[in-house]
Amino acid sequence: MSDRFSFEVLATDGKARRGLVSMPRGAVRTPAFMPVGTAGTVKAMYLDQVRALGSDIILGNTYHLMLRPGAERVARLGGLHDFARWPYPILTDSGGFQVMSLAQLRKLTEKGVTFKSHVDGARYELTPERSIEIQGLLDSDIQMQLDECVALPAEETAIEKAMELSLRWAERCKAAFGDQPGKAMFGIVQGGDRPALRERSAEALKAMSLKGYAVGGLAVGEPQAVMLDMLDVVCPVLPKEKPRYLMGVGTPDDIVKAVMRGIDMFDCVMPTRAGRHGLAYTRRGKINLRNARHAEDPRPLDEESDCTAARDYSRAYLHHLVKSGEALAGMLLTWNNLSYYQSLMQGLRDAIETARLTDHAAALSEGWERGDIPPR
Amino acid sequence: MSDRFSFEVLATDGKARRGLVSMPRGAVRTPAFMPVGTAGTVKAMYLDQVRALGSDIILGNTYHLMLRPGAERVARLGGLHDFARWPYPILTDSGGFQVMSLAQLRKLTEKGVTFKSHVDGARYELTPERSIEIQGLLDSDIQMQLDECVALPAEETAIEKAMELSLRWAERCKAAFGDQPGKAMFGIVQGGDRPALRERSAEALKAMSLKGYAVGGLAVGEPQAVMLDMLDVVCPVLPKEKPRYLMGVGTPDDIVKAVMRGIDMFDCVMPTRAGRHGLAYTRRGKINLRNARHAEDPRPLDEESDCTAARDYSRAYLHHLVKSGEALAGMLLTWNNLSYYQSLMQGLRDAIETARLTDHAAALSEGWERGDIPPR
Repeated sequence: MSDRFSFEVLATDGKARRGLVSMPRGAVRTPAFMPVGTAGTVKAMYLDQVRALGSDIILGNTYHLMLRPGAERVARLGGLHDFARWPYPILTDSGGFQVMSLAQLRKLTEKGVTFKSHVDGARYELTPERSIEIQGLLDSDIQMQLDECVALPAEETAIEKAMELSLRWAERCKAAFGDQPGKAMFGIVQGGDRPALRERSAEALKAMSLKGYAVGGLAVGEPQAVMLDMLDVVCPVLPKEKPRYLMGVGTPDDIVKAVMRGIDMFDCVMPTRAGRHGLAYTRRGKINLRNARHAEDPRPLDEESDCTAARDYSRAYLHHLVKSGEALAGMLLTWNNLSYYQSLMQGLRDAIETARLTDHAAALSEGWERGDIPPR
Repeated sequence: MSDRFSFEVLATDGKARRGLVSMPRGAVRTPAFMPVGTAGTVKAMYLDQVRALGSDIILGNTYHLMLRPGAERVARLGGLHDFARWPYPILTDSGGFQVMSLAQLRKLTEKGVTFKSHVDGARYELTPERSIEIQGLLDSDIQMQLDECVALPAEETAIEKAMELSLRWAERCKAAFGDQPGKAMFGIVQGGDRPALRERSAEALKAMSLKGYAVGGLAVGEPQAVMLDMLDVVCPVLPKEKPRYLMGVGTPDDIVKAVMRGIDMFDCVMPTRAGRHGLAYTRRGKINLRNARHAEDPRPLDEESDCTAARDYSRAYLHHLVKSGEALAGMLLTWNNLSYYQSLMQGLRDAIETARLTDHAAALSEGWERGDIPPR
């Protein structure tokens, strides 16, 4: 344990980095996947299971938590770690992204954003300062600046305007965050699918000398190639000695390709959301358990997995649970999916350490493309 | 393990019995509570947890399983135990009760009952012979006769007609079940709230020399006193050397009072269903976690419980999960509730062994009536 927030690159393989983010509540082995714990719970999982799968850090959503149960209430209850029984690092987003996607009657100004709660219709204001205050009340270890994220495709002027506003908000968040040695506030590179804007954003944030840098506004509708092009532009600009976090990404393939471009941290709802919709991520690709081909298949999802959900339950049983709408379907498939994601990250970390990432990535890709085992 | 189905009374305290039902898949310590695993899953629980709580046996619902995934399919997959990963005893009901409560376009004749599935509208026929056949395909260890259960209040003629039909169906089920030394088929005492009809039913079933006897048609709308009166009539008629199962009952208080009248086995959806609706059973009575009094209460449901769900999560967090509709709410509260029910049964077994059941029952009742801890 470290009493200061710090980051160390332990090994590299090409542009990929094997690192360690240290902070008082624990260390995060990178490349890292952060399961999404929206409202203080990783849906359909006990957090003990999430930890046992090798998760060093989870993500909490400021938007959801500020509305319910409320940041001040969480603070009175001892912070998000005590509240949710997760004594390890937590990263919180700023709330901005979900205000834009979930809240009603949004109004964005230079000062911040006002909106109506999707839970009870109450009015809220979220400014850069309030976002940092809320994340502090939650006692979040890694806090994100408030930013404006534009859905792609979008006009260049709109992308630029949002990016510049995000830079001004980054300065305000930095000031509001102040000096907290054990914690970090990350800036967020914006600029949509425009290389020049991405470069300008990354340079400006770099000049602010923040403790870490996120790449935002990707995986919002653009092709994977565009996302990867933006990483090729942004990563070389960002300082080597700071962690890099690609927000809201992605599929296993997205993650591998982003790691190969120098990204250290990821979060995504895919493994958890897909698990609740009957979909399983495996080394043989994505499997839809709703499909009738599984109805009488006694074989497990993956006989070689060390995850109980993947190895010990038949596809026939999983199919039955999904078709019957049973809670256990989401519990088992989320468990399988997070297990797969965390084993994917462990495999990437090992491959970087032993400088065989290119071969490892090719083997992963081959497995996904070969596809699932044939029906019996 | 026993290769034959058998029952032994190990101790008595008044009319209460501490016993052991033995069969090839394991022994059931009685008085026993059987968690309800409707469709091959105890909702929102891993069966490993259900087992760890001290469950020796679970219940499966023939109606649900015959519709989905289908009895023949379960048989091809190795039976319900393999399918659901529960290698211990399973009791299945006959399907009759749920045909009456869930199916559409029911038609009941001497031969059996035809109905339309609530899942896909397909037509099915359930006769005494088919019910036993299905329970055999599921490989159920304790099978129940098909019966007709009348909702109370009802006319005496209707109750009598259903009771007499149930006796004829018991004979047919017995014949269909045949000689299976490792398994049992239980008869079901009917007769509504009429002592004379209950006595007639119990006597006639006793004469059939079955391996166990259930009391059905109670907890279907009548006051608790009526249910207990019927047990006072029925239990003395039933043979002492056979297990007695009170179907679909009940609250902790119902269970204690029925045990004191000589009942050995119980099943009920209350702990599991209540858990999915924000309700917790505790030694201080039933607690509604949706209530705002819990919103900032850092105390657990029961600091003395040895169940993680009861002891290690704050009421504030549980309240938040319930209000937010999170899956973890049902997972934790079901876990708490089944833990409470199984610890209740263990307490009853211990009290009978040491001949202090009356005092123990009074202490339990006092705890429930004192109610929950005051708000902070």
